[in-house]
Amino acid sequence: MTAIEAIETRRSVKHYDPNHRLTATEIARLIELAKLAPSSFNMQNYRFVLVREPELRQQIRAVAWDQSQVTDASLLVILCADLNAHSRNPQRYWSHAPKEVQDILVPALTPFYDGKLQLIRDEAMRSTGFAGMTLMLAARELGYDSCPMIGFDAEAVAKLIRLPADYALSFMLAIGKQAKPVWPRGERLPDSEVVIEDRFAA
Amino acid sequence: MTAIEAIETRRSVKHYDPNHRLTATEIARLIELAKLAPSSFNMQNYRFVLVREPELRQQIRAVAWDQSQVTDASLLVILCADLNAHSRNPQRYWSHAPKEVQDILVPALTPFYDGKLQLIRDEAMRSTGFAGMTLMLAARELGYDSCPMIGFDAEAVAKLIRLPADYALSFMLAIGKQAKPVWPRGERLPDSEVVIEDRFAA
Repeated sequence: MTAIEAIETRRSVKHYDPNHRLTATEIARLIELAKLAPSSFNMQNYRFVLVREPELRQQIRAVAWDQSQVTDASLLVILCADLNAHSRNPQRYWSHAPKEVQDILVPALTPFYDGKLQLIRDEAMRSTGFAGMTLMLAARELGYDSCPMIGFDAEAVAKLIRLPADYALSFMLAIGKQAKPVWPRGERLPDSEVVIEDRFAA
Repeated sequence: MTAIEAIETRRSVKHYDPNHRLTATEIARLIELAKLAPSSFNMQNYRFVLVREPELRQQIRAVAWDQSQVTDASLLVILCADLNAHSRNPQRYWSHAPKEVQDILVPALTPFYDGKLQLIRDEAMRSTGFAGMTLMLAARELGYDSCPMIGFDAEAVAKLIRLPADYALSFMLAIGKQAKPVWPRGERLPDSEVVIEDRFAA
């Protein structure tokens, strides 16, 4: 499946075959691909919580508007981010680069984020967005569908997965075998609304 | 190019052929594909500022650590989001869905976000993350490279593009023809650090 076919055929699928589970190899492949998504300063701040315990799935579903994909999807990934990735031994993020690049980037990373809580949170959401979209498109090629979800009580889910205080929870992603056809894709907003040439109108 | 090949061969490329420009057809195709990225409640809050004026590119480069890709890339896209998308005539986001779905989702959307400034901002970053990753992978299939950027003075860029107060600027994306090879990809963090099974350790 080409990248463009994956983009064009991806839909947010709500109904999954509850008897299907991804193999360990498939899951490892998805994670391997998600880890190729870019991140600011290559700090790889994204974290993937793979929820497999049926009881935990049920508990999450109970605080997620009872949406069936939480329990029925082959895999439920909760995309989180480490809010201190910028200061956790940052030289390792650039160990592959020429020394002159390391000398610029490594000392720049921690001060770029340190104490800037909104910027850190923005980066958590952006990085998990990149990694999550990568997962959705990789899943298409492996023959699966997916559904990104924010309709849940984030504090309750954070508690259920024991999210540490210095991590952010971004969104959940259900991945699995589609069980029911989706309705036709909705109309997209016109380019006149979403595309701006050079600058916004005065 | 398969979706997985696009994911595996995408790198953040810094050096571009300054004489290459994307055609109008290529740009329209990229935008068409980016608009297929998912968004919360299908509210399509992402906005794409296409910076083509050479003077504006120079002005942005001057507040972006003088990074050459700002002026040299074939296209510079500034990914923004409409922070009021949830309340701008939301019934149109669901006009394609069965009436019973519309009856649930349309009245739910505005209260879900209204007044929740951090949630709205998170959604701006997530949606632009999804759309931006889609652009990066679509660009690969069209034969191009890209570089997501957050190393710039966001307030200065917002001023240069006259970003309205109720929009957020997420990141910039340079897209174009690679002019210099990149260094080998850095090592990825181990799964033991980025993958969590069911819940974080107590």
